Amino acid sequence: MKLSPSIEALIDGLRHLPGVGPKSAQRMTLHLLERDREGAQKIAEAIEVALSKVKNCSRCRNFTELEVCEICSDLKRDPTTLCVVEAPADVMAIEQSGSFRGHYYVLMGHLSPIDGIGPEQLGLDALCQRFSGGEISEVILATNPTVEGEATAYYISERAREASVTVSRIAHGVPLGGELEYTDANTLAHALSGRTVVR
Amino acid sequence: MKLSPSIEALIDGLRHLPGVGPKSAQRMTLHLLERDREGAQKIAEAIEVALSKVKNCSRCRNFTELEVCEICSDLKRDPTTLCVVEAPADVMAIEQSGSFRGHYYVLMGHLSPIDGIGPEQLGLDALCQRFSGGEISEVILATNPTVEGEATAYYISERAREASVTVSRIAHGVPLGGELEYTDANTLAHALSGRTVVR
Repeated sequence: MKLSPSIEALIDGLRHLPGVGPKSAQRMTLHLLERDREGAQKIAEAIEVALSKVKNCSRCRNFTELEVCEICSDLKRDPTTLCVVEAPADVMAIEQSGSFRGHYYVLMGHLSPIDGIGPEQLGLDALCQRFSGGEISEVILATNPTVEGEATAYYISERAREASVTVSRIAHGVPLGGELEYTDANTLAHALSGRTVVR
Repeated sequence: MKLSPSIEALIDGLRHLPGVGPKSAQRMTLHLLERDREGAQKIAEAIEVALSKVKNCSRCRNFTELEVCEICSDLKRDPTTLCVVEAPADVMAIEQSGSFRGHYYVLMGHLSPIDGIGPEQLGLDALCQRFSGGEISEVILATNPTVEGEATAYYISERAREASVTVSRIAHGVPLGGELEYTDANTLAHALSGRTVVR
């Protein structure tokens, strides 16, 4: 069936959202046009504003509207501990846990030579320069426990060690509330090899 | 954690989409900003265009960019058979089945006095005027098999009968490929009471 071209265009557009297939995009389009034109207007405006205002922090590469983000410019935080993560969502998750008061460095990806993503694209040169600057005493590697995340963590740890910066990796193991029975083999292997002595 | 205000605004905006909660909205926002700024721009533009161009067909109330929609102005279709549905998505579903070549009437909702939706909001007066115009020989009621959909169908059928127009209701029963074992009791009751003689 031929739909009106601007409805088709909106359905196609919404498919750029992650996890949205043709059926959901159609449902979203009709919902917006039938029942929430005001909401649709808000989405369009919010996208325009975000696209024009949101850029990367010049220190940590996280998203911000400022030259230096609020975390990097927060004097109450400890600038000697640097937590390296892959994405802004990781910063949000760690901040929500409330268990870290240092600074972050957001790679915006991970090493993936096959996709043409090398150290340069991840800002690793700028990061390593900060290692030799002497300001950082510990770098916590919180990249994802995937092949690419581990490779990225290994690369950074090598460079940090050269600059005599302490390197640590976040613990991987059985999640709290998780059950051993339903934990995958790799995670269990990690949990066993990373066991700590009970005193 | 304080996010930048324009990121917060975009997350809030995307929550106007059906089926999108705070977590998905955050994921969508970060995805657009990190990996698909072009797609985000397309969404914003498609919304603006759709909001300004899409209106309701003056004959069938379905979405269209024209004064009279493509289906209503298609001379190859039969204007004497009118299928009444609740929403544009229903028209799409029936058109995709390829089994109907008449015209539609899209109520854009169903009778729901508690929400202040009466015959006027659904354009039922205009519909009933067309019944008495003598142009329509059969009206097919394809509203949803819900309490409100049935009430709406009943209201229309009464008015159509007054104008001596043949009224039919689409069949409800076990869907093709469905299994009796997993069919709910109401549907089975419908399927039994609506049984047809095998010749």
